Amino acid sequence: MGRETEQRILASGLSIASERGFNGVSLGILAERSGLSKSGLFAHFGSKEDLQLRLLKAAEAALRRQVVEPATAASAGLPRLLELMRLWLGWAARAGLPGGCPLYAAAFELDDADGGPVRAYLVSSHREWMATLTSLVQEAVDLHHLPAGTDAAQVAWELNGIYLAHHVGQRLIGDNSVDARAQAALQALLGTDSLNPGHGPENQS
Amino acid sequence: MGRETEQRILASGLSIASERGFNGVSLGILAERSGLSKSGLFAHFGSKEDLQLRLLKAAEAALRRQVVEPATAASAGLPRLLELMRLWLGWAARAGLPGGCPLYAAAFELDDADGGPVRAYLVSSHREWMATLTSLVQEAVDLHHLPAGTDAAQVAWELNGIYLAHHVGQRLIGDNSVDARAQAALQALLGTDSLNPGHGPENQS
Repeated sequence: MGRETEQRILASGLSIASERGFNGVSLGILAERSGLSKSGLFAHFGSKEDLQLRLLKAAEAALRRQVVEPATAASAGLPRLLELMRLWLGWAARAGLPGGCPLYAAAFELDDADGGPVRAYLVSSHREWMATLTSLVQEAVDLHHLPAGTDAAQVAWELNGIYLAHHVGQRLIGDNSVDARAQAALQALLGTDSLNPGHGPENQS
Repeated sequence: MGRETEQRILASGLSIASERGFNGVSLGILAERSGLSKSGLFAHFGSKEDLQLRLLKAAEAALRRQVVEPATAASAGLPRLLELMRLWLGWAARAGLPGGCPLYAAAFELDDADGGPVRAYLVSSHREWMATLTSLVQEAVDLHHLPAGTDAAQVAWELNGIYLAHHVGQRLIGDNSVDARAQAALQALLGTDSLNPGHGPENQS
């Protein structure tokens, strides 16, 4: 199987995970959608567990491409943090995954799985994401965009809560106010009067 | 089937939903756990859809019993809101559902289901819960426990985000700091220096 074919199959798997949940992705459904044989897919991916790990890695790559990398275009500190939040909120729909973030879909479905490698990977992926958020908050503190003494890990934890409330409101309720609600919550949390990514405090680096 | 038997089956179903997710509850598994015949359960519950609706109603009843009703023992306004939050955070584990809130489990699994009655019920249940939270916040505003002009629906939205961050941290990561994180977030959001439910502002009713 060529790399391009594999990428296409994983993209299709992510789209199914976004729609039907992570456990809804089977080699059978993937075979049906990709027009390849189930035995061919089985030979390539080995097991459902292996497939799920590959899907998680594909989802992380999409998140990096859609959110983390473009955010670095904003100046360091608060502007970059705000740009990351702007790109993170609703990122999955913009990445062609209308059912929402496949990583959180997996987190909610697999959290009680009995400690297999898929859950372990998900836990370390979540920790890494929280560390990324925390370091962006800390950078804004270091650049005096946020008050000295701000607990960066606490702010990151609350940013994650804003993302989750947005995710639930958008996916479950189809609530049109989620963007405004998230913006108001960000303003209150970060003490920014107006959120104009790229037009942050003057002492930006 | 007697009412007691039905309650026992639904409780067992909630526990499975909490562990394996909402879609993990089938009439077959319930039959296995309850020692009743699958055809007997099918005759009683009719369909998986009917069973899921009954499970959602049982989860709502548990939430009312564990969270909403006991919170009314605290005085109206901020003390009652804080008591509700204290009881809500981690309620499922205390209700014998170690896998977490079955309503949110359902919300994350069924959000893209194609508009059937189960999803419709879930949406209205979520709206009702947000209305309950909003009215508790508004009561705290009306009693001058929170600043005049506070946007009660916005605060309720952010409280939901705190719950979700706590839920994810506790279920997925097994993070011991979630209670302290949630308390710090509540303090920042509600402007309370110390959270002592039942010992709120003096002008409580």
